[in-house]
Amino acid sequence: MRLVTARTANGNRAGRLDGDHVVLLPFSDVGALLASGDGWRDSAGVDGPRHALDDLVLAPVVPEPRKVLCLGLNYASHIREMGREPPAHPTLFGKFARTLTGPRDPIPLPPESGEVDWEAELALVVARPVRRATREEAIDAIAGYTVANDISMRDWQWRTTQWLQGKMFDASTPVGPALVTPDELDGDAGAPDLEIRCEVDDEVMQRSRTGDLLFDPADIVAYASTILTLEPGDLILTGTPDGVGAGREPRVFLQPGQTVRTVVEGIGELVNRCDRDEA
Amino acid sequence: MRLVTARTANGNRAGRLDGDHVVLLPFSDVGALLASGDGWRDSAGVDGPRHALDDLVLAPVVPEPRKVLCLGLNYASHIREMGREPPAHPTLFGKFARTLTGPRDPIPLPPESGEVDWEAELALVVARPVRRATREEAIDAIAGYTVANDISMRDWQWRTTQWLQGKMFDASTPVGPALVTPDELDGDAGAPDLEIRCEVDDEVMQRSRTGDLLFDPADIVAYASTILTLEPGDLILTGTPDGVGAGREPRVFLQPGQTVRTVVEGIGELVNRCDRDEA
Repeated sequence: MRLVTARTANGNRAGRLDGDHVVLLPFSDVGALLASGDGWRDSAGVDGPRHALDDLVLAPVVPEPRKVLCLGLNYASHIREMGREPPAHPTLFGKFARTLTGPRDPIPLPPESGEVDWEAELALVVARPVRRATREEAIDAIAGYTVANDISMRDWQWRTTQWLQGKMFDASTPVGPALVTPDELDGDAGAPDLEIRCEVDDEVMQRSRTGDLLFDPADIVAYASTILTLEPGDLILTGTPDGVGAGREPRVFLQPGQTVRTVVEGIGELVNRCDRDEA
Repeated sequence: MRLVTARTANGNRAGRLDGDHVVLLPFSDVGALLASGDGWRDSAGVDGPRHALDDLVLAPVVPEPRKVLCLGLNYASHIREMGREPPAHPTLFGKFARTLTGPRDPIPLPPESGEVDWEAELALVVARPVRRATREEAIDAIAGYTVANDISMRDWQWRTTQWLQGKMFDASTPVGPALVTPDELDGDAGAPDLEIRCEVDDEVMQRSRTGDLLFDPADIVAYASTILTLEPGDLILTGTPDGVGAGREPRVFLQPGQTVRTVVEGIGELVNRCDRDEA
């Protein structure tokens, strides 16, 4: 099953992809659908008004997650390019709903940063409340996967020891287009093995496989749930492989007019043009 | 004006303190009151059912903030005890609504941590949406102040470079008891100068003044709003002075049965017993 959140004249609306059409569902967004309880798969299967996908503007697949958690340093290749040692524990930082944007929305380049960089990521969405999950419970708590780009303002990220301020600019993190349930994907439900890629103006900047994650999605859910209760709609970005702009020689960053394409095989792609943020 | 969020049989309810009574208001909590718009002060002034304060159980004054931002390293004394240099920029990290707890609730000591530490903090609550605020706009965007304790699991905080995982355990951060509007406090509305104190079982562990903050509340709102839009009900913890357990020789941490009392002069106090978290 592939689920989206569409922006309509009456606000956001959850929908189910059916080929090149979307069947609208009686929920304000995919987060609200998941929060309706363990019957969400049945609720997502009902009939409803149909629209051509091309006629709809998509929102972040979960526009208002209560939590957005992100992993740093979770591909060996990216750890090497950033000059770090492989970690014993997942590195976690946060984002906020305000930071998310839709899969085709422009990414605003803020005048306050000259170092806006890309980070293609596999993301997961939590289906149900879970605390101190075993690996099996963790897998069961994953509603599905989507694509995200953890766009990072490096100059702000590295102003202090804590990366958050370079990771939470308004509308900087595209998420979507669809939530794809694990049964649609190759590999283990808790650790899909998919090609992940980031292109800037058709130049491939990152290419790796999600099977190379040091901490796989089920590991991450189990780990994070030791600390706090994960809730329906919570979004977790699992980390980025090598090939970011700050890891290149010379370093390169996003410029107005460029287009970032973020692809995870079998899930979908984000296509986001970089616009000057006219503050 | 002093505003609280009470837990009632019908869910949370906002209220206004009137001496030792609370006048219940037609909003689910103080965050919902603030989100009602710039008329929130008038809305908070109306009459309603009265209850003795002692008969009510208080929730975190804003139980569901869309964002919780925290400052690290914001008192010179605490920077010295942690062996760090004074920073050029505020150090920001996050928390989530799930991490908050009420002003009289027990703090669960998770079996996964042996290093649970205290951090008394002045916190502010955002009144209105604000982006790229000047100092004047920042002051205007502060609804008021409250007390928080940024309880920190040091062993988890320092597992990786990013502190978040030691700062987001479920129900670990007491917040309240009341939101106090700036007109009730000594000093500048954007930089109140108040004694702040943390006691563990009547032993004073931290004592400082909020006037010693390197980045004052108005600075912090202006800075954070450069990055993302602050919204009504957003909660910002402004940092902690010296005297934390991890900065002592020998180091000391919270034990089951101990009581943490966190006081900001003129605002109020948190009283939280430490309980074993029976996971």
